Amino acid sequence: MNNSELAFIKGVASLAAGQAPGLVKGIGDDCAVLQRHDDEVLLITTDTLVSGVHFNLKWHPPHLLGRKAAAVNISDIAAMGGVPRYALLSAALSPELSDGDLQEFMNGFVEILKEYDVVLVGGDTVAAPCPTFNITLLGEMSGAEVCYRAAAQDGDEIWGSGFLGEAAAGLALCEQMENVPEQFAPLVQAHLNPQPRIALGRVLAASGHVHAMLDLSDGLATDLAHICTASGLAAQVDANKLPLSATIEKAAAFLGCDARQWALSGGEDYELLYTVAPGTGEALARQVEEELGLQVSRLGQMNSGQGVFLMEDGHKRQISYQGYEHHL
Amino acid sequence: MNNSELAFIKGVASLAAGQAPGLVKGIGDDCAVLQRHDDEVLLITTDTLVSGVHFNLKWHPPHLLGRKAAAVNISDIAAMGGVPRYALLSAALSPELSDGDLQEFMNGFVEILKEYDVVLVGGDTVAAPCPTFNITLLGEMSGAEVCYRAAAQDGDEIWGSGFLGEAAAGLALCEQMENVPEQFAPLVQAHLNPQPRIALGRVLAASGHVHAMLDLSDGLATDLAHICTASGLAAQVDANKLPLSATIEKAAAFLGCDARQWALSGGEDYELLYTVAPGTGEALARQVEEELGLQVSRLGQMNSGQGVFLMEDGHKRQISYQGYEHHL
Repeated sequence: MNNSELAFIKGVASLAAGQAPGLVKGIGDDCAVLQRHDDEVLLITTDTLVSGVHFNLKWHPPHLLGRKAAAVNISDIAAMGGVPRYALLSAALSPELSDGDLQEFMNGFVEILKEYDVVLVGGDTVAAPCPTFNITLLGEMSGAEVCYRAAAQDGDEIWGSGFLGEAAAGLALCEQMENVPEQFAPLVQAHLNPQPRIALGRVLAASGHVHAMLDLSDGLATDLAHICTASGLAAQVDANKLPLSATIEKAAAFLGCDARQWALSGGEDYELLYTVAPGTGEALARQVEEELGLQVSRLGQMNSGQGVFLMEDGHKRQISYQGYEHHL
Repeated sequence: MNNSELAFIKGVASLAAGQAPGLVKGIGDDCAVLQRHDDEVLLITTDTLVSGVHFNLKWHPPHLLGRKAAAVNISDIAAMGGVPRYALLSAALSPELSDGDLQEFMNGFVEILKEYDVVLVGGDTVAAPCPTFNITLLGEMSGAEVCYRAAAQDGDEIWGSGFLGEAAAGLALCEQMENVPEQFAPLVQAHLNPQPRIALGRVLAASGHVHAMLDLSDGLATDLAHICTASGLAAQVDANKLPLSATIEKAAAFLGCDARQWALSGGEDYELLYTVAPGTGEALARQVEEELGLQVSRLGQMNSGQGVFLMEDGHKRQISYQGYEHHL
């Protein structure tokens, strides 16, 4: 996907976008939001995984791929604060995926749906030159609690869950060696089998303290730029506060890479990124740790202006959109 | 897609299917049906079109392909009797589709969405080895009026709209010659630019007379088998009553093909097939012609038993599932 294609598609998409009865939020967030009944809304998201582009069967066990295909969509529901409910699967199959692989894929797919109490309600199967999986996921939640990208405010603290860059480091390891050393297993797992943060999204949305929220699918630099663009603000990230695990630092040294670059532009972490009013982040972080045993870290703050900036040793450099971008 | 794959996927899909709050109908019809508010339901369907499998850019103008990608999903909403409302587009792009082609595709896609008053609410764009378009469409209607496949009754008359086999004949012509004679233009149009029958679906569903309904996407023999399987009945089609146009008869003679075979197993007609209680079909047909100027024809009748049978010169032969099949 080159930039001119993306810009073109966004332009045309805007022609087909617009208001409609019952439509709360259309293009431009992790999910579309439809009025359902009373205060309840339906969340809808769709994502495509293409063999050789989004996954590589050389190192991705089909069982974990089936899980991941669902997980990346479940994560979009988490990004709004919702609960996933219904799924549709379009499977484009080719001989590249053997009958046994397909069986494993479906087992993993069904397994994660059951874990999150999601029911498969439809889909189609087609033949194709290369395996491609498209999943549409519907979730639900109270309309009053939905966390949008556009709701960040000047002065907000920026927080994120978990470690960053783990999935990118895991991908780099899988790409560069057949047998990844055991000590790096958590990074490989982050790439192969990401955990969508539904419970965290619910706690954050229900707290009433979160302003903007999304899931880190395209990398911090790009995803934070989405919040900035949608909210009409700038963001400043403190390079020393990037949550890097001891394991990723070792992997970076091992491969001769920069762990911070993985964290900023690697993508596919599927952690949640959110903003809160100044002074309210710490208490919420304690609540999250008490209720869920999860760590969240303060990464920086929102300011007036435009763009995402990394503060490092007194220097400030723009890092907006230094990652992937694929959503309309 | 071979039969063992399809059978396997259906088996696993059933593991992930089930009841859920707000779910009226899951896998097994043209759309899933979700409770929305009061008597209103949401209809959801998804379909994938893969280059080289579902379309061929050698003869399919990208503008019409954009229309068709939306039309085949709009048709699934028509099949339940609903009105299409919201769309999500996942576009997997490759260099096979030039920038100009993509622009034409999106223009056609936006054009048909506007014609049917459908708003694009989300999607994603990804790179891929071959162009693949997945569209998810949501529609709405009164829950009391939804027409399911499983609602056919013993003795029902079977009716269908329009001519059958036109799209299959159009495809055969495009495959076999670069310059299709002008007299066959309606057949080529049926293949390139199918018209979803939303207005007809609404009239039929609102009439209260229709029992089972679906859209003819896989061919009469297969689609009627879907109704039979879902309803626990058999169907008998009168070979002499197949609605064949003068144009298709000429094309069949021209290519040395059997027009009835196109009508029975060709697929992609996107006409509506429905059943009504004995004696009620004629009046409904007159209403349809008066209100919409559309022709519907009586094709046969439902009976106790299993399978789809063609009656021809006093002979009866089974024709169940002699077409495509791709839906879960």
